[in-house]
Amino acid sequence: MSKYSIGVDFGSLSGRAVIVDLDTGEEKAVSVYEYPHAVMDRFLPCGRKLGVDYALQHPADYLEVFSHTIPDVMKKADVSADDVVGVGIDFTACTILPVKSDGTPLCFIDKYKSEPHAYVKLWKHHAAQAQANEVNSVADKMGEKWIKRYGGKISSEWMFPKVLQILEENKEIYDETDRFLEAADWVVWQLTGTESHNSCTAGYKAMWHKRDGYPSKAYFKALNPAMENIIGTKISDDIVPIGSKAGEITESASKLTGLNVGTAVAVANVDAHVAVPAVGITESGKMLMIMGTSTCHILMGDEEKTVPGMCGVVEDGVLPGFFGYEAGQSCVGDHFDWFVKNCVPAEYKKQAEDEGISIHKFLREKAKKLNPGESGLVALDWWNGNRSVLVDVDLTGVMLGLTLATKPEEIYRALIGATAYGTKMIIETFEENGVPVNELYAAGGIAEKDEMMMQIYADVTGKSIKISASAQTPALGSAVFGAAAGGYFASAAEAASVLGKVKDKVYVPVPEHTEIYEKLYAEYKLLHDYFGRGENDVMKRLKKIKKEAQSHA
Amino acid sequence: MSKYSIGVDFGSLSGRAVIVDLDTGEEKAVSVYEYPHAVMDRFLPCGRKLGVDYALQHPADYLEVFSHTIPDVMKKADVSADDVVGVGIDFTACTILPVKSDGTPLCFIDKYKSEPHAYVKLWKHHAAQAQANEVNSVADKMGEKWIKRYGGKISSEWMFPKVLQILEENKEIYDETDRFLEAADWVVWQLTGTESHNSCTAGYKAMWHKRDGYPSKAYFKALNPAMENIIGTKISDDIVPIGSKAGEITESASKLTGLNVGTAVAVANVDAHVAVPAVGITESGKMLMIMGTSTCHILMGDEEKTVPGMCGVVEDGVLPGFFGYEAGQSCVGDHFDWFVKNCVPAEYKKQAEDEGISIHKFLREKAKKLNPGESGLVALDWWNGNRSVLVDVDLTGVMLGLTLATKPEEIYRALIGATAYGTKMIIETFEENGVPVNELYAAGGIAEKDEMMMQIYADVTGKSIKISASAQTPALGSAVFGAAAGGYFASAAEAASVLGKVKDKVYVPVPEHTEIYEKLYAEYKLLHDYFGRGENDVMKRLKKIKKEAQSHA
Repeated sequence: MSKYSIGVDFGSLSGRAVIVDLDTGEEKAVSVYEYPHAVMDRFLPCGRKLGVDYALQHPADYLEVFSHTIPDVMKKADVSADDVVGVGIDFTACTILPVKSDGTPLCFIDKYKSEPHAYVKLWKHHAAQAQANEVNSVADKMGEKWIKRYGGKISSEWMFPKVLQILEENKEIYDETDRFLEAADWVVWQLTGTESHNSCTAGYKAMWHKRDGYPSKAYFKALNPAMENIIGTKISDDIVPIGSKAGEITESASKLTGLNVGTAVAVANVDAHVAVPAVGITESGKMLMIMGTSTCHILMGDEEKTVPGMCGVVEDGVLPGFFGYEAGQSCVGDHFDWFVKNCVPAEYKKQAEDEGISIHKFLREKAKKLNPGESGLVALDWWNGNRSVLVDVDLTGVMLGLTLATKPEEIYRALIGATAYGTKMIIETFEENGVPVNELYAAGGIAEKDEMMMQIYADVTGKSIKISASAQTPALGSAVFGAAAGGYFASAAEAASVLGKVKDKVYVPVPEHTEIYEKLYAEYKLLHDYFGRGENDVMKRLKKIKKEAQSHA
Repeated sequence: MSKYSIGVDFGSLSGRAVIVDLDTGEEKAVSVYEYPHAVMDRFLPCGRKLGVDYALQHPADYLEVFSHTIPDVMKKADVSADDVVGVGIDFTACTILPVKSDGTPLCFIDKYKSEPHAYVKLWKHHAAQAQANEVNSVADKMGEKWIKRYGGKISSEWMFPKVLQILEENKEIYDETDRFLEAADWVVWQLTGTESHNSCTAGYKAMWHKRDGYPSKAYFKALNPAMENIIGTKISDDIVPIGSKAGEITESASKLTGLNVGTAVAVANVDAHVAVPAVGITESGKMLMIMGTSTCHILMGDEEKTVPGMCGVVEDGVLPGFFGYEAGQSCVGDHFDWFVKNCVPAEYKKQAEDEGISIHKFLREKAKKLNPGESGLVALDWWNGNRSVLVDVDLTGVMLGLTLATKPEEIYRALIGATAYGTKMIIETFEENGVPVNELYAAGGIAEKDEMMMQIYADVTGKSIKISASAQTPALGSAVFGAAAGGYFASAAEAASVLGKVKDKVYVPVPEHTEIYEKLYAEYKLLHDYFGRGENDVMKRLKKIKKEAQSHA
């Protein structure tokens, strides 16, 4: 009789569960549930208007994901709860909420139902930029060492800017909160009845370090006197490594999910990081790119190194026993969506319609016919700033080499090339700082669908690329951790080596292409450094002029 | 009884005549005649295939312009030939043809009817680039001083590269030719029966100088031994200043045109330069921009100065007694045509159609609502290289400052801004080299139609701009010279002061806009110099890679 693990992946708009056969690795069934409240970025359910850059969620939606998808996958796969050895979950991050000591979200309490700060702040809640600036400037002033692990800058998306926003804007909510915690950890708490805090989000999003812990009291006091003692009180310092068991399904969770009481539940994880075991990576030197609207790069190393511009390095942050490095490109697929929306002539649109294909496919078909370097274009992929390695949101895009003969598909392809050079820059930076990158893996929508782009990435980086074989990579990764938590495998790494999988097709660099791309990359690098490292700050000055001009509008 | 002058303007695809009342300056009638052979860029009339980059014309078409348009304007205006005091003509340049000593074009001779090199080479015949390279490299090697007057480089469009091409590719045609001359001078010869060569084309296109003459025998010998004695034989050295009378209508020309025998004919002129008197410019320090697909800048000075990157400086080249300076931007309106063809989304096209306006007008309406600097974009207007002040065809376009929020109309407006910065750069370069630019005038399609663009030019340059009041600016300019040749005025300058005209509407810079554009121009200049003056030759390297990649196609 086969045994099974269930992975549940909480995305930005929906949650999805997958049930996996632990002997064959086969994904037996998938179930998706869209959050009834989706992302609340304009109004609360009561009709209260939200501020600019808000992005909230309703925690009740997460429980509905469990109650809908877990019974559904067991039913579809015809699997009994008796044969499910464990459950794992992963979540967007940093997605946080304030709760009471028994785990009740403040937004569940009548008194706070109309209070925005009582709800979940989704990762892309960008209204705490002022607070992020404070977090950074206080750290700079005090010469805090931990900030180096984050490329020198804390994002407004992370834990403490969001908490500080609540404190500054609604002291009552702050005071009434017993715990601020990741939604990832909160949903695990709802399944197990016991609180746990995972090392992944603590390390990447809350400035925690396995050996050094959190920043000092003095730092938090300087940030805001009310936060002096926040660690150990409103923020837990009891951090559990990824790959452990968080607890077991309780009576009430059993009713919610149909799982047996006592079923193992893994410590929570993050959607990007959990994809690493899903492609079978169990050792250092292999970089996974999760490629969608943006790209997240996850790489494991054997030592802690300071790498300029990385988003974070966390011991046990990806798999126990390794230092998990994260880097990222804030704009990848978004370039192509922008291009298709703003720059494609009517004639192309019509031809694509006549051929019955998407405009992306139409452009790719045309772009595919070009030789590397044939367009004479090179671009800087900074339409949404640069996350790694420059960590600078104020950088903007460049297209260079335009002539009267330049065609739309050439610009489209130049944008693909630019994102590939951005990845090569990240790889080089890791390698130059003592973290080897021997092999590439890719997951996500682009890796799944865009063969030309993946071939260009292989040609540009000069490295072969393996592609995740699962269409539900994060959920599969969570199932890996669920299986390990349930004791079916000795460790998450062992589970990954059995359940993780890549496609047969590997993208292998074509040496003649790599040779040309090396020349183009040299040009990209020259422009990257000229515009990105302070030699010509034209982009920042233009942004300043733009802001002044808009204020006169 | 009023007296009249007729101006005939020979363009790239048609000729047009205008008849002007010499007391009021009123244009009484216009007549246009399209060349039956248009531009021959693929085949000769006999069906013979032409080479790459060929652009030929048939000289018979020019005679048909005379026979159709001159009688037509007299008839339309109800003017008797007795009241026409003179005729002037202007032509595209450098547009040349080989003729026998009696003026018969070689292509009129049966034996040579199927020979491409026997026909007129239109200004945009670009098949003599290899010969232009020889002209330049020999001049460089020999340290020829005259090349400085042309910004250090002779264009493939000019006289000697075209003649050298004929010599190298068809020695028989070269040997059979008694004169190579401008089509401008040839049509005047057909009217007057006497050969004359104007100072404008000789100076700007054939390296002639009023005091120094042509380059030396030694230079021509080094270029090709067969050319040692070309000056004074196949190329006339009898140059007549602009503003003089070339001759009078002959019997046969009278039959052709309906003009009286003995009517004065002015020395030929060039379409751009002849526009200067048509807007009433009669003194130094006033720059005229002729703005269309490209822009030509004409400015008169009192002394001969070396200005980097100008296209030429010629004594008596525009009006007698002045040094006429020419500069240019090789891509102006062409940017917008490229943009509309390649970068405008279907949705915009549909909206423009629904509103019943052109896509250009639609984009301008949207762009007009933007404040200066609001887009955050800055571009380098080098989609077709840079003529002045860098004289470098291998430079390419740049668009910088792109974000996911960038809209098509912002890019469109950034292109307008970039061409305006290019003009400001030309003005500054003249001023820095001792040639003052006190006032701006504009003529051509863009000046006529695009109010937003003209206002941006005024704001960017910080100078008021007056606009030609004539829709037939060059033809009116030719009528000015016709009137002077006919003796109705004491000089071309006096004729210009009566007949030249500008619109009432003057574009006056808005000081708050100029202030912002000065900041943007500073950014343009920084990028212009970085990419254009050798600090980063990325554009040339990309072109090299492009050529190699295309050769593998």
